[in-house]
Amino acid sequence: ALLFIISGVTLSSSHQSETWDPEAKAEYPRSNKLLIRQALLGPDAKPDELNVVQVETMCLQESIKIPVAILKVGETRQARLDIEFPDAPVTFTLIQGSGPVHLIGQHLLGALVEEFEDMEE
Amino acid sequence: ALLFIISGVTLSSSHQSETWDPEAKAEYPRSNKLLIRQALLGPDAKPDELNVVQVETMCLQESIKIPVAILKVGETRQARLDIEFPDAPVTFTLIQGSGPVHLIGQHLLGALVEEFEDMEE
Amino acid sequence: ALLFIISGVTLSSSHQSETWDPEAKAEYPRSNKLLIRQALLGPDAKPDELNVVQVETMCLQESIKIPVAILKVGETRQARLDIEFPDAPVTFTLIQGSGPVHLIGQHLLGALVEEFEDMEE
Amino acid sequence: ALLFIISGVTLSSSHQSETWDPEAKAEYPRSNKLLIRQALLGPDAKPDELNVVQVETMCLQESIKIPVAILKVGETRQARLDIEFPDAPVTFTLIQGSGPVHLIGQHLLGALVEEFEDMEE
Amino acid sequence: ALLFIISGVTLSSSHQSETWDPEAKAEYPRSNKLLIRQALLGPDAKPDELNVVQVETMCLQESIKIPVAILKVGETRQARLDIEFPDAPVTFTLIQGSGPVHLIGQHLLGALVEEFEDMEE
Ligand SMILES: [Mg+2]
Ligand SMILES: [Mg+2]
Repeated sequence: ALLFIISGVTLSSSHQSETWDPEAKAEYPRSNKLLIRQALLGPDAKPDELNVVQVETMCLQESIKIPVAILKVGETRQARLDIEFPDAPVTFTLIQGSGPVHLIGQHLLGALVEEFEDMEE
Repeated sequence: ALLFIISGVTLSSSHQSETWDPEAKAEYPRSNKLLIRQALLGPDAKPDELNVVQVETMCLQESIKIPVAILKVGETRQARLDIEFPDAPVTFTLIQGSGPVHLIGQHLLGALVEEFEDMEE
Repeated sequence: ALLFIISGVTLSSSHQSETWDPEAKAEYPRSNKLLIRQALLGPDAKPDELNVVQVETMCLQESIKIPVAILKVGETRQARLDIEFPDAPVTFTLIQGSGPVHLIGQHLLGALVEEFEDMEE
Repeated sequence: ALLFIISGVTLSSSHQSETWDPEAKAEYPRSNKLLIRQALLGPDAKPDELNVVQVETMCLQESIKIPVAILKVGETRQARLDIEFPDAPVTFTLIQGSGPVHLIGQHLLGALVEEFEDMEE
Repeated sequence: ALLFIISGVTLSSSHQSETWDPEAKAEYPRSNKLLIRQALLGPDAKPDELNVVQVETMCLQESIKIPVAILKVGETRQARLDIEFPDAPVTFTLIQGSGPVHLIGQHLLGALVEEFEDMEE
């Protein structure tokens, strides 16, 4: 049995970075998976500006730091991502542009899930 | 065993908001999940106007209010979303533009599903 | 055990509407689900013309009539839909434009599926 | 237990058509499913030329012949399809344009799968 | 039980090729599957340059070499792929353009998975 939680993050020049880390909160003592559904550039974004969201996480002792979304007014305002992250913490940073970029995703929390088990199955 | 129901919503300047809340109706006393498949801008939409659909819902006592679709004539008239919402009520609002924006989605109703169980599994 | 059948429909000014209704045929006395994979505008479509496909179906005594694809030469010639319909009949109509619009989809036929059961599971 | 095999096909003016028919080979005496993931127009494709890939197959004694991809330099060079074909043979033909169009897909081969069973389940 | 690992690769003119081959490392003695989620062109990519990523792998003694992503500034900066590779090694090469192209994907490692079994099931 899995519990899924919808969640949203908005990155902008005044809030460039946010870390998803449910395990750091007492209410979520269980295994996690984060699934980022899409990134969307807000209607007030500046024209002629590239907006780039980078993700940073650890996986099996290897650090990953890679851009996952690149958005621009008049070109691409909305991108489906469907990228999964098996372990918290995961940090999203707006490394270029002033946004706002809205990320929508969902957590999967499994009370009975053992470590390393694929929660997708 | 799950039952799924296809449903559609059209938002416009004369009908800017609609709330999905099957649990408020007597016929649906069971757990729910809403899956929004796509948003589509109607052929009579105004040019040079951004249309933005915002979703508002609660999840584990946290309120979420985030744009999920941004559509414009000549640029993007149709967007696949595939965003799931675990709990009703979910409110969709056309916060910018006059539409019409057509949302198509499906409810999953599970007679035997316990609270918090992932109906997708 | 499910059987799936690939199928295609082409809508144009000379064939504006088609109804999917396998239960009306003696060979398919079982439960059904229709999954529309994509819509594609043929290479001979007229420029400067919007092509709009509308779907009409019934679901739990509620009628749904909503556009599902909007295509235009030079802008969007191909759209992934992945929209499911739990019950036949489902009618697709080219409500604007002269097409041709090619729809490709698949039926899922379940010999053992009980009414209201989610065939996706 | 299923076996899946990645495979690629390139269609061009000198090789306009290719048939997928693993059952015709002695090494694959089992049931099959073909899943076409995407079509991609090669970097040397001619500008101002539409490239159209048509699929032709049989399903329950009905013949299907329908375009599945339409690609053009400067407009759409890459399209996700995710279209499944339950039965071989399936023939892909470049009915317009000179390509090259690269199709990437995968076969699912099920040793224990009974006829008509949905291998995705 | 499956373990999934998120991973990223960046290809550019100074690092044109990378091979995914977890079986060559002692820490991963198990069966594998690679799922490439998306390709994204970095914000500093050159305008007017096509960037093409080719994949090369073996499958059942057949060699496959096919382009999987084609990206260009101002046209397509980000493409969802969702292409699976059943067997390592898989080599990604930037055969045209100077990038950078960021690939994001995930490995599925199954301790109990038998050879040829579809890990997706
Ligand atoms: Mg779920
Ligand atoms: Mg299937």
